[in-house]
Amino acid sequence: MSQKGLPSRKDDYSAWYNELVKRADLAEHSAVKGCMVIKPYGYAIWEMMQQELDRRFKATGHQNAYFPIFIPKSLFEAEEKNAEGFAKECAVVTHYRLKSDPDNPGKLIPDPNSRLEEELIVRPTSEAVIWNTYKNWVQSYRDLPILLNQWANVVRWEMRTRLFLRTTEFLWQEGHTAHATLEEAMHETRQMLSVYADFAENIMALPVVKGIKSENERFAGAEETFCIEALMQDGKALQAGTSHFLGQNFAKAFDVKFAGKDGKLEYVWGTSWGVSTRLMGALIMAHSDDNGLILPPRLAPYQVVMIPIYKSDEQRAVVMEKINSIKKELEKINIRVKLDDDDSQTPGYKYAEWELKGVPVRLAMGVRDVENGVIEVVRRDKARGEEGQKTIEQIATIIEKIPAILQDIQESIYRKAIKFRTENTAKVDNYEDFKRLLDEKPGFLLAHWDGTPETEEKIKDETKATIRCIPLDATEEEGTCIYSGKPSTKRVLFARAY
Amino acid sequence: MSQKGLPSRKDDYSAWYNELVKRADLAEHSAVKGCMVIKPYGYAIWEMMQQELDRRFKATGHQNAYFPIFIPKSLFEAEEKNAEGFAKECAVVTHYRLKSDPDNPGKLIPDPNSRLEEELIVRPTSEAVIWNTYKNWVQSYRDLPILLNQWANVVRWEMRTRLFLRTTEFLWQEGHTAHATLEEAMHETRQMLSVYADFAENIMALPVVKGIKSENERFAGAEETFCIEALMQDGKALQAGTSHFLGQNFAKAFDVKFAGKDGKLEYVWGTSWGVSTRLMGALIMAHSDDNGLILPPRLAPYQVVMIPIYKSDEQRAVVMEKINSIKKELEKINIRVKLDDDDSQTPGYKYAEWELKGVPVRLAMGVRDVENGVIEVVRRDKARGEEGQKTIEQIATIIEKIPAILQDIQESIYRKAIKFRTENTAKVDNYEDFKRLLDEKPGFLLAHWDGTPETEEKIKDETKATIRCIPLDATEEEGTCIYSGKPSTKRVLFARAY
Repeated sequence: MSQKGLPSRKDDYSAWYNELVKRADLAEHSAVKGCMVIKPYGYAIWEMMQQELDRRFKATGHQNAYFPIFIPKSLFEAEEKNAEGFAKECAVVTHYRLKSDPDNPGKLIPDPNSRLEEELIVRPTSEAVIWNTYKNWVQSYRDLPILLNQWANVVRWEMRTRLFLRTTEFLWQEGHTAHATLEEAMHETRQMLSVYADFAENIMALPVVKGIKSENERFAGAEETFCIEALMQDGKALQAGTSHFLGQNFAKAFDVKFAGKDGKLEYVWGTSWGVSTRLMGALIMAHSDDNGLILPPRLAPYQVVMIPIYKSDEQRAVVMEKINSIKKELEKINIRVKLDDDDSQTPGYKYAEWELKGVPVRLAMGVRDVENGVIEVVRRDKARGEEGQKTIEQIATIIEKIPAILQDIQESIYRKAIKFRTENTAKVDNYEDFKRLLDEKPGFLLAHWDGTPETEEKIKDETKATIRCIPLDATEEEGTCIYSGKPSTKRVLFARAY
Repeated sequence: MSQKGLPSRKDDYSAWYNELVKRADLAEHSAVKGCMVIKPYGYAIWEMMQQELDRRFKATGHQNAYFPIFIPKSLFEAEEKNAEGFAKECAVVTHYRLKSDPDNPGKLIPDPNSRLEEELIVRPTSEAVIWNTYKNWVQSYRDLPILLNQWANVVRWEMRTRLFLRTTEFLWQEGHTAHATLEEAMHETRQMLSVYADFAENIMALPVVKGIKSENERFAGAEETFCIEALMQDGKALQAGTSHFLGQNFAKAFDVKFAGKDGKLEYVWGTSWGVSTRLMGALIMAHSDDNGLILPPRLAPYQVVMIPIYKSDEQRAVVMEKINSIKKELEKINIRVKLDDDDSQTPGYKYAEWELKGVPVRLAMGVRDVENGVIEVVRRDKARGEEGQKTIEQIATIIEKIPAILQDIQESIYRKAIKFRTENTAKVDNYEDFKRLLDEKPGFLLAHWDGTPETEEKIKDETKATIRCIPLDATEEEGTCIYSGKPSTKRVLFARAY
């Protein structure tokens, strides 16, 4: 079924992505408009991401908890900017019971007698319900900080959806912390941004730019939004995670105060931070090629696939014995191995299938290989025919070599992404070049901006490019805004974005 | 805050449970009627349960996936009995947008223009949306079996709720499998029941009776419901997990057919099985005492708590050095250790606090203990003052002793629960005894029943006792129904239940 070629990235990047997600068995559209089914192979990758992130959250002192999926409308309204920001995409529960439709036997309708006095919002994000809870948990400075995270589903009604990138329901984690001081909350905000960046670069092999959002792109209800931005192979940017400094906004909206050591009452300082199944989209789009997925070994459900080659039961027995013993040895050193011993498919079919699914290393072995004590190793990160893609290794040393090969693949995928980003990041100093590059060679554009929302809005209207972030490592330099010509002191990062 | 005594189980079991859940920081009621907040300590226990269950599901060949939280009404209606069974407790989404209330500045109302053409049901269980998906996944016998599980939140509108035991939203896992034959589906149904029983007994230290539900208590849409039933300390039963043989009901409702090896089209056979955060309630109620939680070591977020005792900074330094080195050694052998070095609380306060939270082993050490090379060990499973509750051990050998002590605690908690169940299970042969025992010595009652829903219903109306299950290991014996006097061939398990 997945043996036909994918559309190529060059011909139709968007079709390539959609087909790849489907054919690699990652996800599909569901019967519910805008919601996806995450298939087992896709979910296994998400589980690997969760484990890595969860470990990092706990290592930085956070605990998991769980808050309700529903938010009473009155709570939702409490932080005005937040409410305003999400009001247009909220699923609203109005009834709590169905009854038989008197006009349509066998059909059901919401029971009018079960109308809720107060509507419930399906959480688009949980600040409201969580800060309303924190109110009861915080009396004194001794109750702070609160460092919680939750893994949950959220719903934001979307008109135009794409698997993983933009869906009405998605899975995510949301950290919500409360602190005694501005400094501590700001430290937390930046710390979690670094946790995300570390995860993206070292686990996803995805280089990211750390930065601050402009006012236009800030989270509704935050004082400051930090983000990590990644570059996809079509030159569009993807926001891969955000960390918000909430100031005292939610504390004021929900009246969360604490008594300091001096007994004075003060509002609590807050942060929130999240990444979602959107990361799956980033992972797929950043690394994969026209033959399918390319998974970094640290996130691959199977790091090694083993394919036996034989023509008779006798040959099968010989090959399988050897292959099974190698498999056991690999599993002993915690390598995730898939042995594809399905008799109903040819080796060629299997090669294409596991290439499509992005397994980092393929090992194949036939009877003659067993006799000669060798095994074929194919790396997914290299192109077909590229030097080093296919090698013949000694069976005697394959076990010790695999970890190093996996490590090398992890690094090479990252290096390739860095190289791509470097080649597709340009400094531009005037609006003509800016517009030309967006069309001819899309990517990250570093340009001067006068700092006003008006200019940003106009550039967006005219070019569809937005300010992805003001990079944290931007160097001070004199310049003039590419749009207004007004003075500017540093370059910001522009791109068209997902 | 939690230093006042709990209500006693004897005086008010229900108040004891509610207070314990709150004071041990497990969960609390939220601002959303019927929904709970699972607090970090409670959630950590749930995470341990999840890990153990997930490992068992994967070891039996299952993979995780994720399906949408919303079910379009028309899909929900498709399997009639299932729809009927859940219709009265469904949260219904009718709008997808809020707008400013023209009559109330700053307030929001569902935008009438965003009314959904077809209402969405917040999943009470996912058979409908999943079988509608399986329809597209299954063509031939080669596509079977499908062995999936999902970890998710579900919503069943409840009028009377209790933390963990009965909440409008709860967390659970739901397995959904599809098979080519009745036999295979039935084998799966029974296998997962065994997985649940194994988890309950070996991890939760909770003895369970495996059985089959009577028709009245069967899952809506199933052909047969298997369950595990546990006995709580107040003599009430708690259903701790169910595994349903769905026959071809959902396959027929959603038209899921496969071509067999002979090319003939047949409906697929199905199962579903689940356990939920209700298990938290079972865990708490089965083992805990009037001083607080008692956690089996295999589910305890902290298996050992260490409490240093000192009166000066000098003493503190001496004690902490020793205690930290013991902690490190324990962590090396994967013991989960909490060191409570909070200077603002007395050791006595800490003892009570960690007793309340059910940590299996408490280690305490002062300066003189360090000098003498000894450490105090207190076991949570034994009553205060009971022999063996408190012992003095040599520091030199404490590391090697702890795993054995934890293992012994795990087993002793289980043995105690078995003993309680044995003492509170009775065979009864007439309705008078049945009613008398329910009031005087509630527990499991094994009695003959004529097999009819009518009799079951009448017994329930008159006594509030229900048939918990027909035990799988029930022996064939001649008897007469305690209610109708009609003949019966085996005893079934009655109890009042949560």
